[in-house]
Amino acid sequence: MINAVGRDIPEEILEITNKEVFQGNGYKDGYTYKKDGANTKCVIHNKSNKLVGSLRKAIEKCGIRDGMTLGFHHHFREGDYIVNMVMKEIHDMGIKNLTLCASSLGKAHDPIVPYIEDGTITNIQSSGVRGKIGDAISAGKLQGLAIMRSHGGRVRAIETGETRIDIAFIGTPTCDDYGNCRGIGGKSNCGVLSYAVVDGLHADRVIAITDTLVPFPNFPAHISMTNVDYVVEVDSVGDPNKIATGAAKPTTDMRKLMMADYCTQFVANAPYFKDGFSYQTGVGGASIASTISLSKIMKERNIRMRFGVGGLTKPMCDLLINDQVDCLLDTQDFDLDAVESVKALKHFRISAGEYADPFNKGAVVNKLDFVILAALEVDVHFNCNVVVGSDGTITGAQGGHPDTAAGAKCTIVIAPLLQGRIPAICSDVTTVTTPGESVDVVITDYGIAINPLRQDLMDAMKDVDLPFTTIEHLRDIAYEITGAPKRVEFADRVVGVIEARDGTIMDVVRQVKPFAFAE
Amino acid sequence: MINAVGRDIPEEILEITNKEVFQGNGYKDGYTYKKDGANTKCVIHNKSNKLVGSLRKAIEKCGIRDGMTLGFHHHFREGDYIVNMVMKEIHDMGIKNLTLCASSLGKAHDPIVPYIEDGTITNIQSSGVRGKIGDAISAGKLQGLAIMRSHGGRVRAIETGETRIDIAFIGTPTCDDYGNCRGIGGKSNCGVLSYAVVDGLHADRVIAITDTLVPFPNFPAHISMTNVDYVVEVDSVGDPNKIATGAAKPTTDMRKLMMADYCTQFVANAPYFKDGFSYQTGVGGASIASTISLSKIMKERNIRMRFGVGGLTKPMCDLLINDQVDCLLDTQDFDLDAVESVKALKHFRISAGEYADPFNKGAVVNKLDFVILAALEVDVHFNCNVVVGSDGTITGAQGGHPDTAAGAKCTIVIAPLLQGRIPAICSDVTTVTTPGESVDVVITDYGIAINPLRQDLMDAMKDVDLPFTTIEHLRDIAYEITGAPKRVEFADRVVGVIEARDGTIMDVVRQVKPFAFAE
Repeated sequence: MINAVGRDIPEEILEITNKEVFQGNGYKDGYTYKKDGANTKCVIHNKSNKLVGSLRKAIEKCGIRDGMTLGFHHHFREGDYIVNMVMKEIHDMGIKNLTLCASSLGKAHDPIVPYIEDGTITNIQSSGVRGKIGDAISAGKLQGLAIMRSHGGRVRAIETGETRIDIAFIGTPTCDDYGNCRGIGGKSNCGVLSYAVVDGLHADRVIAITDTLVPFPNFPAHISMTNVDYVVEVDSVGDPNKIATGAAKPTTDMRKLMMADYCTQFVANAPYFKDGFSYQTGVGGASIASTISLSKIMKERNIRMRFGVGGLTKPMCDLLINDQVDCLLDTQDFDLDAVESVKALKHFRISAGEYADPFNKGAVVNKLDFVILAALEVDVHFNCNVVVGSDGTITGAQGGHPDTAAGAKCTIVIAPLLQGRIPAICSDVTTVTTPGESVDVVITDYGIAINPLRQDLMDAMKDVDLPFTTIEHLRDIAYEITGAPKRVEFADRVVGVIEARDGTIMDVVRQVKPFAFAE
Repeated sequence: MINAVGRDIPEEILEITNKEVFQGNGYKDGYTYKKDGANTKCVIHNKSNKLVGSLRKAIEKCGIRDGMTLGFHHHFREGDYIVNMVMKEIHDMGIKNLTLCASSLGKAHDPIVPYIEDGTITNIQSSGVRGKIGDAISAGKLQGLAIMRSHGGRVRAIETGETRIDIAFIGTPTCDDYGNCRGIGGKSNCGVLSYAVVDGLHADRVIAITDTLVPFPNFPAHISMTNVDYVVEVDSVGDPNKIATGAAKPTTDMRKLMMADYCTQFVANAPYFKDGFSYQTGVGGASIASTISLSKIMKERNIRMRFGVGGLTKPMCDLLINDQVDCLLDTQDFDLDAVESVKALKHFRISAGEYADPFNKGAVVNKLDFVILAALEVDVHFNCNVVVGSDGTITGAQGGHPDTAAGAKCTIVIAPLLQGRIPAICSDVTTVTTPGESVDVVITDYGIAINPLRQDLMDAMKDVDLPFTTIEHLRDIAYEITGAPKRVEFADRVVGVIEARDGTIMDVVRQVKPFAFAE
């Protein structure tokens, strides 16, 4: 069945997943559902001891068995030790047919590929995957489906009961003996634990894993003892130095600086740029450069930001240090400056639900004026792809892309016209991950296209000296340089589903065809 | 059926309420249940406006109808305007047969008695009631039952789905236009909103009522926008000066000072009094005096408190100011000093669930070393009564009494031997609200009795120079002075149920017999 972004979703996938096709951002607005609840084991006695001597013992106490769903968060990013540590233990126990429901998975988790191959892990739900797990899924090695969800969509899936987490594993920089978890104060700090909040609230069993036990009460807790069954102390939960892996440093790339300048100029001329505006940006080099240059214009025009949201990096935290923003709302820390900033009084932690869940009574993303994003591909319908590489392999994550894009009043996607020899602006993205209706502006090094749905923005920009053009023209320039790209050839089997934030199906990902020499 | 504290619970009450009789504090430890969830209406569009022009309109938008259950909190205590304001509106709409599920009700709510009499309100669930509502219930004017629950018990009832709140009304000192609520920053501050947290999480519809709208985001929020459907601005939500009504000021009553001194000496000689101990006290004059004198001993012996819990008053907050305690965990503020203290860095808010819920994975009360409580009556089985006056009328509240008593390692109840001409130490309390197994020590102005269940405490005190005796001896002294009290005569009809914190039935309250002259 064809969905609202023109993708044909196979009937058998709709049947297997019991889902509808994507029908537009607002389709589920006002929908009422009953929130799912955890199976909770009461701790009434005041002598109960949650400390367990080993991870293995804690897993056993949770009654692990074949077919369960396990929850993980990715706040340690490429420095995460938890997923591998837990999965090795469970693999050694001979448990099979597990579903991993992680807020994201990366290259740090390459070691679990053998557990995919041997049927220990048969389903994966994640914001996305990178590295060898992506290769394995695209090669058809996962027996079941990989479901890719946005950060808000993951909360939605868990809150609706579509995904029921049997055991959640929460790596935490500090924890007390009763399970109060914090992202700071330890030897391996990740800042916040926002993605794990929903695991704490909705998983039947919750194990907190820490390398720094602290005295009770470890307050203000980000995950409450009221949700934690067991506490395990290990040597190390992660390498905080690898948290920043992949996050951009201030760029010197002239092309990126040019796009950053376009972006800054666009924001500064948009009607939402006024005292009290709100702002979020990703970790791309151009986004970061744009935040830095925007802060200068804010000073010049005496404009103050009300709140910044993220996915935070140093330039956003600098706004707080320089008193250019009232407060930061933090769902993830991309570098150690952001981790350190968590201690600041006006640096507030928010859960992934507060951040981006479309199925609560209103998330922070709905209050965003601007969000600055990146994309692997953008097509002439303004649809974006942030998950599947142009070779057809899964190699990225939805993250908060579809959530912030839908919520913000002005969504700007920065993409260089060409990624190497591959056009980033194309006729049809390989895979749709964020629908065009969410994307207002596309900024490239060859010009800027405003989505025709936003006549108001076109009007606001009509006297602004920026290289405006159409998205089709940008695509044409790209194709002139590289030639029209050949569409990737896929095999028939669907290996992954791109879920829209409301749980409908945006697109599917098929197995890549094994390479064959042309005859 | 006779329960574990010897009370005969009528079969028809067990049937109506679908409950079991109380079977001891530990009966439900380890019990597993599925948490109930709210029927949640999704707000996806970023243009949704939660601000509603009038309370009436907000109530209509929530689809109010006969038979619904309404949630209220009591953080404004005797200064609360919300219950009366909301109930007048709903009464004017002609709605009938409502259940009020309040964290507590007091004299401030006398004006709703006519709504009990005319069938607008037919059931009440509360920690307790005071004033004319208590008189009305005891006189049999409520058509249904009054269920009295502890603060932890209320959370349990809502989390299990035993009580489903259709609409929660959350009076809040400050709120932004998206529903983020805080107990401070406005013109009528109550400090924290701990009791309302469970309403926010579990009520189907939530209305935030404020007299101080502030810019988004009102962070750190105590009730999140993600739980709030509508926001209403009114002239005033409460009178903070009346929050302190009923809370004791430092006493000059020699009898109370003597009991306070006994209490301090007992605590100082107990094995739990060591560096890093934890402590909670009520708002009675003797409790407060004891906190003040304990702080002196702490200084002398160089002992520091790890955390204080409450129900907080000035003397507890002074410990923080004087750096004698690491942090305070706050569930309610009993005076304006405590409200002010909420702004302190180490003054942490906790929800009623974190504080005292027996049906989560471990509440703060389980980590208490000492709790100092009061009681209307204590009997020779150490059972306490804090709800029903010796005339048989409902005039008090369970509050956190049963929760903290069950959780703390050492539970001390201070009660003067005589309350006027009425013995506070008696053979059998009028109504059991906290079971004797939870009560370790009873301190009176005539001596101190240790519960025989606590041989360890008896051993610890054997060389301590305090007037130890038996509970029976204290009862005998009281009865010698006043004569054995006549048992209150009740009519047959059960008007109230005293629920144990785990949802079983501790006792029932019957209608008082209309006064008749003796023949």
